[in-house]
Amino acid sequence: MKRTHTNGELRLSDAGKKVSLIGWVAKRRNFGSLVFIDLRDRSGITQLVFDETISEQIKEVRNEYILEVSGTVLERKDKNDKLPTGDIEVKVEEVVIVNSAETTPIIVADDTDALEDTRLKYRYLDLRRPVMQKKLMMRHQITRSMREYLDNHAFIEIETPMLGRSTPEGARDYLVPSRVHPGSFYALPQSPQLYKQLLMVSGFERYYQFARCFRDEDLRADRQTDFTQVDLETSFLSDVEIQTMMEEMLQKLMKDVKGMDITTPFPRLTWEEAMNRYGSDKPDNRFGMELQEITSLFENSSFKVFKDCVEAKGSIKAVVVPNMAHMTRKEIDKVTELAKKNGAKGLVTLKYMDNVLSGPIVKFLSDDEIHAVCDTLKLKEQDLVLIVSDKWNTTCNVLGALRNHFGSVLGLKKLDEFSFLWVTDFPMFEYSEEDGRWYAMHHPFTRPKDEDMQYIDSDPGKVHAIAYDIVLNGYELGGGSLRIYDGAMQDKMFEVLGFTEEKIQENFGWFVDALKYGTPPHGGLAFGLDRIAMILSESESIRDVIAFPKNANAKCPMSDAPTPVDEEQLKELHLNIEK
Amino acid sequence: MKRTHTNGELRLSDAGKKVSLIGWVAKRRNFGSLVFIDLRDRSGITQLVFDETISEQIKEVRNEYILEVSGTVLERKDKNDKLPTGDIEVKVEEVVIVNSAETTPIIVADDTDALEDTRLKYRYLDLRRPVMQKKLMMRHQITRSMREYLDNHAFIEIETPMLGRSTPEGARDYLVPSRVHPGSFYALPQSPQLYKQLLMVSGFERYYQFARCFRDEDLRADRQTDFTQVDLETSFLSDVEIQTMMEEMLQKLMKDVKGMDITTPFPRLTWEEAMNRYGSDKPDNRFGMELQEITSLFENSSFKVFKDCVEAKGSIKAVVVPNMAHMTRKEIDKVTELAKKNGAKGLVTLKYMDNVLSGPIVKFLSDDEIHAVCDTLKLKEQDLVLIVSDKWNTTCNVLGALRNHFGSVLGLKKLDEFSFLWVTDFPMFEYSEEDGRWYAMHHPFTRPKDEDMQYIDSDPGKVHAIAYDIVLNGYELGGGSLRIYDGAMQDKMFEVLGFTEEKIQENFGWFVDALKYGTPPHGGLAFGLDRIAMILSESESIRDVIAFPKNANAKCPMSDAPTPVDEEQLKELHLNIEK
Repeated sequence: MKRTHTNGELRLSDAGKKVSLIGWVAKRRNFGSLVFIDLRDRSGITQLVFDETISEQIKEVRNEYILEVSGTVLERKDKNDKLPTGDIEVKVEEVVIVNSAETTPIIVADDTDALEDTRLKYRYLDLRRPVMQKKLMMRHQITRSMREYLDNHAFIEIETPMLGRSTPEGARDYLVPSRVHPGSFYALPQSPQLYKQLLMVSGFERYYQFARCFRDEDLRADRQTDFTQVDLETSFLSDVEIQTMMEEMLQKLMKDVKGMDITTPFPRLTWEEAMNRYGSDKPDNRFGMELQEITSLFENSSFKVFKDCVEAKGSIKAVVVPNMAHMTRKEIDKVTELAKKNGAKGLVTLKYMDNVLSGPIVKFLSDDEIHAVCDTLKLKEQDLVLIVSDKWNTTCNVLGALRNHFGSVLGLKKLDEFSFLWVTDFPMFEYSEEDGRWYAMHHPFTRPKDEDMQYIDSDPGKVHAIAYDIVLNGYELGGGSLRIYDGAMQDKMFEVLGFTEEKIQENFGWFVDALKYGTPPHGGLAFGLDRIAMILSESESIRDVIAFPKNANAKCPMSDAPTPVDEEQLKELHLNIEK
Repeated sequence: MKRTHTNGELRLSDAGKKVSLIGWVAKRRNFGSLVFIDLRDRSGITQLVFDETISEQIKEVRNEYILEVSGTVLERKDKNDKLPTGDIEVKVEEVVIVNSAETTPIIVADDTDALEDTRLKYRYLDLRRPVMQKKLMMRHQITRSMREYLDNHAFIEIETPMLGRSTPEGARDYLVPSRVHPGSFYALPQSPQLYKQLLMVSGFERYYQFARCFRDEDLRADRQTDFTQVDLETSFLSDVEIQTMMEEMLQKLMKDVKGMDITTPFPRLTWEEAMNRYGSDKPDNRFGMELQEITSLFENSSFKVFKDCVEAKGSIKAVVVPNMAHMTRKEIDKVTELAKKNGAKGLVTLKYMDNVLSGPIVKFLSDDEIHAVCDTLKLKEQDLVLIVSDKWNTTCNVLGALRNHFGSVLGLKKLDEFSFLWVTDFPMFEYSEEDGRWYAMHHPFTRPKDEDMQYIDSDPGKVHAIAYDIVLNGYELGGGSLRIYDGAMQDKMFEVLGFTEEKIQENFGWFVDALKYGTPPHGGLAFGLDRIAMILSESESIRDVIAFPKNANAKCPMSDAPTPVDEEQLKELHLNIEK
């Protein structure tokens, strides 16, 4: 017996053929003297029928046994139009039980009510569910499509070190103790950033890598201990040239994987515009409900909260939520809570019903102001209006969060709709009140805009970076920038960030030195592959597109990693555990 | 100015065109009022010529400066037939100095006399050397070719965990302390072995991955802290079916990368035959000088060494080295030393000159024995004969090492010749006298041959594995096996290896459990990518095909990793360093 077909392959046109199949028993049922078995492999399901001459041989066969069968393809009487193979069945003439199976702790079917930790403990069974197999197969399709584009556009894949050097900036490193150099540690890479820049110094011109990256941060729903980055870098190209290539790559990706034609160029928003209109640096533009600036309406308001905001040069903005004026006090309280969780001191809500604007603060507003609000916001019957007045960035962030919330509530985030955009012109620096210093918003190797260099000493907050993020459906899919390629500018950058000469030398000396020997202008991008796979496979968690993920506690429920290790192993590393 | 061509592209047919180029200054020379510059990028070199109207602008330009130029392609008077662009030069009309360069600490040219640690410290310059760029580009070509084959043969690429569980068998793990679970550690993967088997349990049928793997072993010339494995696994296929696919993949690889047609199927040697004929489980069959069995010639010898060997059921073998009879006593002493280093108690050497066999032991041999030796070995004038009599495996190993030595000495290992073969039927177990126990020669998940299972309790040494190695030019390029897919057989295997039930449960329970739920027959292979790249690029060290390798001391001379880390970082991990 030698497998002739997969279980997703046979059609009515194959009727009469002798075939051999192999696979797992997905379902078994008896019908009079006949036994029907759904035989499953990764490509699908074929119905087998065993008559009384052979059914004795499979009497102990249950779900998840593996069978190899030979038989004849027959047209089915009761066709199943939900299955591609639903027009036929295979009348089995020979059967071999390849392996048996105990009752599985989770049911191998698309629908599951198993808890996630149970699914992860028996991940090998969870992955046997067709829905999970399809997700991982789509992930492969995605990498294949992207590689194809990069390979055909002169990019060279180069592997960079997994055991690198720990650096103090950025997220927490995973450390790897060295046995050969006791007391010293390697760090797992947070990204190949410096190495890919060095590859440009080496003259490779176009590099890519599907790179595993590690950050020892607390896990969230869409975070893992490690993730895969589609990492690339180019020399001699402008930001727009890089973006255009990436749009082509994503266009091909959407065609290859989803069969969809998407339009390029993608919309481009500056960071400021994105914040102003969507209250987010990763706007979800599958739906409207944009933020609207209404500060000017309240320049002479007698409503103290707005007046104070205007005087403090803050920003008053509104989001109009359609058909939500019916919300109860209690429901609105919850929205206010969400606003506060995002940093608001308060939230003004108004309802527009029967052509009248109502709400707790209406009594403080003049008729002119009320009219101006209705006009400016073009209010319609049953609109709910959310207003925040605060410092500009707080106003934006809060309303952005509320907009997102109502986008979900109103079902506007369609999983099968895909909306790409670029956010550009990020600020180079952000100031931490807490630490009393400037931080690089992307990283210290990002190139500032030439025309902003005049502010670098006097007002670093005014300096924009040639940095760009690509956003899909409200997720940051990737980000990149042009990089600094001249040593003096790099030194200046470190100066603004408050690094001492000593600290620079100690931590980045090896990299900064490299800039002296003929560094080309260069820039690149990195995509989060897990996130791309999650969105394109219409999954709710990145764990669904990772074969063996960690749980939210950074543990693998299957292997139980991490575990204690032998005393012997620690001794070799010259390490003690502090109790 | 916008780059129109690369520096490897222009030909005589382009003469007269206006072009723009960008690249590094590889060489500058003045000739009267003219300045000639070789401009280099990753694709090659183009000669630029600057006349007196423009040479002033580049007066400070030196090697490794980056220039962007526009000009006209001219036919060269003195053509350079060593360069693909040697028929033309570009008369520069416009030039921009894109970046300057200090004098480089190593010379950017194919030939270098820099020490390896200097090359590694300034790796970004070392990699600028065209010869190094070509090696890394070939590595990419190799991965591209192999991926193409696998993608087109229904293999699915799936990433497996980088932060796994430490297991006691095999090589030493690199450990990663967990911050969330103080006192617990992840281990970096030595290979995705268990995960790929679980993916077969999951029903993926064909998996592959270009996997980074880690072993904390002492480094040698062809070892790194980590390496890249082309890892694959299949379900429902026989060993020969897997091997046949791999032959096809390698055939395509040799065509794609080297433009060579190689013949399949590759020769197949059982492990025993490989040892008997080549004294190696990874024979280099680019050349002959096979080991010849001559034990039977000495069954009644009066030469005590041979007689003892025959009586102890040892093995006497010979290797004939052509044209080496002229070696001096001193030279032969060195060969004897090499034999002893490989475990021999002694080495018998004979010379065949003027139709006479001579050598220290000839006087102990009978005329019949001398004739038998000359006849059996078909000795020719100037042959040197090396004979070892010892336990079978020692005899094989020693003569294998000497054969290899003389293969090099005689220049028989041609770098541009590529000879593949399979070694099959490895012993399942090897016995460690030191530990007094059996070890799995491959790993404990390898499937033994059915027909040998009868010996598993009585004589494990007799059990062969369905394991196969692929060998290229004397290097083990990859290895694989069919795996155990039934729990009872896996338990038996652990029993022979002396694992207690407790140890099994603790270390492999999570894996062995998975075998209970319908595991398909499966098997696979893993190739060492670094080694493939080294051999195909005709390099002498794997470090030449790794962008940023560690040195023999497991250090990166460029970043200085590994390094001490902040006290703070250790505190978070609850670790102390033992002074």
